[in-house]
Amino acid sequence: MYTTDLSEEQVSALRVNKDRLAKDLHYSCQWGAGIRWGDGSTDTGMQRLALSDEDKKVRDWFIETTTNLKCRVTVDEMGNIFAVRPGRRKDVPATFIGSHLDTQPTGGRYDGILGVLSGIETLKVMEEMGLETEGGVGVVNWTNEEGARFPVSMVSSGVWAECIPLERAHGLKEVPTVASLSTAASAPETMKSALEKIKYLGPVPCSYKETPMAAHFELHIEQGPHLVSAGQRVGVVTAVQAYRWYHIDVIGRDTHTGTTAFQHRADALFASARMMVRAREVADSHGCLASVGIIEAKPGSINTVPGLVSFSFDIRAPETELVTIVEADLRKEFDLIAAEEGKGIGKPCRVEWRLDFDSPAVKFHQDCIECVQQSAEAVVADANVPDSKSLVRTIMSGAGHDSVFTSKRVPTSMIFIPCKDGLSHHPEEFSTAEDCATGASVVLQAVVRYDRKRFA
Amino acid sequence: MYTTDLSEEQVSALRVNKDRLAKDLHYSCQWGAGIRWGDGSTDTGMQRLALSDEDKKVRDWFIETTTNLKCRVTVDEMGNIFAVRPGRRKDVPATFIGSHLDTQPTGGRYDGILGVLSGIETLKVMEEMGLETEGGVGVVNWTNEEGARFPVSMVSSGVWAECIPLERAHGLKEVPTVASLSTAASAPETMKSALEKIKYLGPVPCSYKETPMAAHFELHIEQGPHLVSAGQRVGVVTAVQAYRWYHIDVIGRDTHTGTTAFQHRADALFASARMMVRAREVADSHGCLASVGIIEAKPGSINTVPGLVSFSFDIRAPETELVTIVEADLRKEFDLIAAEEGKGIGKPCRVEWRLDFDSPAVKFHQDCIECVQQSAEAVVADANVPDSKSLVRTIMSGAGHDSVFTSKRVPTSMIFIPCKDGLSHHPEEFSTAEDCATGASVVLQAVVRYDRKRFA
Ligand SMILES: NC(=O)NCCC(=O)O
Ligand SMILES: NC(=O)NCCC(=O)O
Repeated sequence: MYTTDLSEEQVSALRVNKDRLAKDLHYSCQWGAGIRWGDGSTDTGMQRLALSDEDKKVRDWFIETTTNLKCRVTVDEMGNIFAVRPGRRKDVPATFIGSHLDTQPTGGRYDGILGVLSGIETLKVMEEMGLETEGGVGVVNWTNEEGARFPVSMVSSGVWAECIPLERAHGLKEVPTVASLSTAASAPETMKSALEKIKYLGPVPCSYKETPMAAHFELHIEQGPHLVSAGQRVGVVTAVQAYRWYHIDVIGRDTHTGTTAFQHRADALFASARMMVRAREVADSHGCLASVGIIEAKPGSINTVPGLVSFSFDIRAPETELVTIVEADLRKEFDLIAAEEGKGIGKPCRVEWRLDFDSPAVKFHQDCIECVQQSAEAVVADANVPDSKSLVRTIMSGAGHDSVFTSKRVPTSMIFIPCKDGLSHHPEEFSTAEDCATGASVVLQAVVRYDRKRFA
Repeated sequence: MYTTDLSEEQVSALRVNKDRLAKDLHYSCQWGAGIRWGDGSTDTGMQRLALSDEDKKVRDWFIETTTNLKCRVTVDEMGNIFAVRPGRRKDVPATFIGSHLDTQPTGGRYDGILGVLSGIETLKVMEEMGLETEGGVGVVNWTNEEGARFPVSMVSSGVWAECIPLERAHGLKEVPTVASLSTAASAPETMKSALEKIKYLGPVPCSYKETPMAAHFELHIEQGPHLVSAGQRVGVVTAVQAYRWYHIDVIGRDTHTGTTAFQHRADALFASARMMVRAREVADSHGCLASVGIIEAKPGSINTVPGLVSFSFDIRAPETELVTIVEADLRKEFDLIAAEEGKGIGKPCRVEWRLDFDSPAVKFHQDCIECVQQSAEAVVADANVPDSKSLVRTIMSGAGHDSVFTSKRVPTSMIFIPCKDGLSHHPEEFSTAEDCATGASVVLQAVVRYDRKRFA
């Protein structure tokens, strides 16, 4: 049976196997199971940093599983793994379902993992049904989407899209704060050395030209509160907000904590504290976000006023221009704060910004959005409520996803499902098996619809 | 010649050898020479954390040097090294000159080092002159005075004074922020394991009962701006201000930086930033100091709002009661800040304080202060100015010193000399060779005067 032979009703009736999806998902979480928060066997978070030993194990499992589902598997120079179930036509690229298997240091079981597992489940349904597609169907596991170990998020889809140079990505050093969780090496690993270490530095050049796609669909938990608080079931993601990541150095002067009056200090940590407080005020006034996740104060001694503080800085806004505005405002504000700290000794603090990552706002592709919208409406009809379509809404993503980069090269869109309390990047991140299955059924249908649309 | 045979004039004429003192001091700084700030051979700071390999080397040198000066050397269970040049009377404890050879991670060449070297120079002058004392004269190198590697300052004089239990001191773990500078061990060293590693876990019980002293004199750079800005040469230290060290945990909730509105956050780092800003305001309003030297945010990922922040906290005040007041005020203020952060989700941050070290204000002993005052006035007479006595002033120490703990058990006082810009705990910490010699001459005379006073 070919997708193009199905009736509209038959497409709308496609569903994944909820229990199998949940079982596979939690099975894959045996590698890197993290902080325990409940008594149940799956009541833990995840700690599976990109290219760690645990990541290697789940990658091996991914390849074994997709190979058993008759996929052709390739690995590129960024360790991205592409598994393609061939379609009837050999001369066209596959439609991909993709996300990532890496997690935050204190992450959950759904962020990224659900997206990849929905791809595997889609293949299983197709196998089971004997459903053949016109173009192939691929599942891709992107490397280091989180940016938690190597400090650029979505870096490997970024290289694939030729938006980030391979050399820059390969040269990224692991973040010191999480290094001990991912490696026993004494020197910090680079992305390249970490790829080599777990034998996932593949032979295929990392590029959309070498591994083309017809489209990219990604299922994800919302990671925010909108769906769950409105009691809605599916978010049709039409856009992703803009964000920039910076490394900021505040340079002051080391001095004794016990003998140095405040007006004689150029305390880089005190100045940084004022900057963090001001950053929230300024971002809030523009309806944007600004956050510090990593901070390091040197020399790191109780009785020495820190002369150097480095912190990560993450600005997000629905529109790219707003990020620019917040950045410009804060550059001024931080300079003012720095100038005040140490002026008593004529040696004021200084601030240096380094832009590490820039992801402008993105709008997804209308064709993909339509496939997702139709599929979502079909799936939520199961709810059997009078106005089931109201269970579906369009939504903007607050977080970045690999779909941001695939959208630069191929039609792309995403599907969100609710998660408990809108919580993510936390061990207690949770979505019900039913919501996961709803989302995966939307993926399954969207891929089928897209395949039919391509060859209509 | 015995000290008791000298005339007042002869005592007042005693001087150390300026060039030899400077040469010995910089010689001892070959072990652990730190950050370079100028072109000269001695234009570097020091990085000689307690019980590091560099500290072992300077300890070995200290023992060799004092042994050659006919001292009997003992090492106690805290690695304190006591070198005693015997006096005429064998049945009485020696008068000690003491300080420390460990430094901050980004420290200078004078803090502590000058105090120990002034003791060695004193012995050299006595040898050279054939000057014998009634009681012995000792030089002591106290272990981990800085509290930079093991986070309790003056810990080993504290154990000697039986103010800190040996087990607690031995069990102290090295500070993670400086661990990589001091050791190649993968697990953090404890003080005991570090003592064993460099073979300085001595056999003598660490106690003033086992290693008694008649008195303790300590020469130190001021580490503050008072002497240098007034153009004064010697500070007769009569008191040390109070301080307390805390480890503070701020507990919030990990969550995603890109999807979590400010009002849905319990951002432990944002709350900590507000606390740091408030701490300065409150301390300043009481004329006290409050400082954060170490900070750690977990999980330490760019796109995760930190759910746990730990920081060191150092409160200082001229009076013990003021430290108590500032602590009480800040406990309330920090609780208020914590309560606001996360109240939107009904999961406000919490703050936990742990007191790690408490050093009440100290007043030194009148007998020692008098010896220092007379000696200082005698030495600054060299300046040959009309009112040379105005070059000497009494002063309170802002920093803690081993003399704080010796003062609990034996008559103690200190001598300060000016240092450039009042700067300390910084590689550029600097005192001129002349000021160092002035201070050391005061030590020499003070010890002689004390010896004469004891046996008058
Ligand atoms: N989905 C997700 O958490 N991605 C990480 C990149 C980001 O920080 O938004
Ligand atoms: N003198 C000195 O720097 N001692 C360290 C203890 C303190 O923090 O005051």
